[in-house]
Amino acid sequence: MTVMQERAMLTREKVIAGAADVFYRLGFGGATLADIIAAAGVTKGALYFHFPSKDDVAFAVIDAEHEIATAAATRILESSSGPLESMLRLCADLAERLTTDPIVRAGIRLTTETSTFDRSVTRPYEDWLATFETLARAATVAGELRADTDAEKLAHFIIPAFTGVQMVSDVFTERADLRQRVREMWEILLPGLVPPGSQGSSERMLAAAFPAR
Amino acid sequence: MTVMQERAMLTREKVIAGAADVFYRLGFGGATLADIIAAAGVTKGALYFHFPSKDDVAFAVIDAEHEIATAAATRILESSSGPLESMLRLCADLAERLTTDPIVRAGIRLTTETSTFDRSVTRPYEDWLATFETLARAATVAGELRADTDAEKLAHFIIPAFTGVQMVSDVFTERADLRQRVREMWEILLPGLVPPGSQGSSERMLAAAFPAR
Repeated sequence: MTVMQERAMLTREKVIAGAADVFYRLGFGGATLADIIAAAGVTKGALYFHFPSKDDVAFAVIDAEHEIATAAATRILESSSGPLESMLRLCADLAERLTTDPIVRAGIRLTTETSTFDRSVTRPYEDWLATFETLARAATVAGELRADTDAEKLAHFIIPAFTGVQMVSDVFTERADLRQRVREMWEILLPGLVPPGSQGSSERMLAAAFPAR
Repeated sequence: MTVMQERAMLTREKVIAGAADVFYRLGFGGATLADIIAAAGVTKGALYFHFPSKDDVAFAVIDAEHEIATAAATRILESSSGPLESMLRLCADLAERLTTDPIVRAGIRLTTETSTFDRSVTRPYEDWLATFETLARAATVAGELRADTDAEKLAHFIIPAFTGVQMVSDVFTERADLRQRVREMWEILLPGLVPPGSQGSSERMLAAAFPAR
């Protein structure tokens, strides 16, 4: 990589970090390019070189968030003891990041504000839906979920439900209760999803995904 | 009521209808008072007489939405055959209104965009949470829900879950699949919530809340 390329990449990262901060605080509608320039500490020219419009900056933040979450998801899938535990741990991990990682917080806020954009933001949802559908199918084959589970329907409920849980937690407690609410979501869901007599393994999975602190 | 009072009330209603249309299309951040004046067909002076700021118009739309939903909820509570059926029918009814009623659509969009406002919008959530907690408690006493149901936790999952389901349905299909997705939410939830051997009555409730069309 040349010095110029390195400098360009550094500028890009600075813009994304600054933009994440601004979008998280002000939302897409409230943020201006001037706010982002100030927060990122770059020149106007540098910003426009990388991102011709506010939409482009917002999509870059969403992409950065998605990259972070995808890398984390890969680590979880590789280290879980089974597909159902993976589903719980993915939810727990995203809940954690939503309270601590500035780029993830901003990316999710922008994604849920999607209708403000000209282009609609469905890709992050689609990736999560596909991942959870695959996991639900595997968990059914493994006997962790009831044999009559409809993996597509289940994934298409869990992802929207999680989306709503994090949103309402944000409104009421700025996500201070998010981890607990996500755990409760699984406490409510598991009894209807697992085969009869699985109470013990459900409790083990909850403990693995939401360890006591 | 004097002629002047009547005229003022009419103007107020026109502003709310016009604002609902603008907020639903453009969101809180994208909408301007000029857009609202044009959509409502009122003078600038008339608008400012009733609503000193964009925040005030937005809160009036949220209040109007809430009034419509509350009136509908009262009718459902009075005509349901039990508290659990009421919970399903309230969700089905709101899903219906979210696809057909311009004020409800706008009110919910504004509520979910809450963080854009200076004041936060928790009241609509609080009312729904309280209603569902009361119903869950009654359904537990009536033996429709498992005896060990935690009504507060259950309500605090169902309302956020519904919020997320309508949001994701909006992103993917502009709510064309909302009724079906809300039905699926209850199909997934009920087996874990009802006492053993209640499959028949669960199916009857689903049929009552989501009749075939």
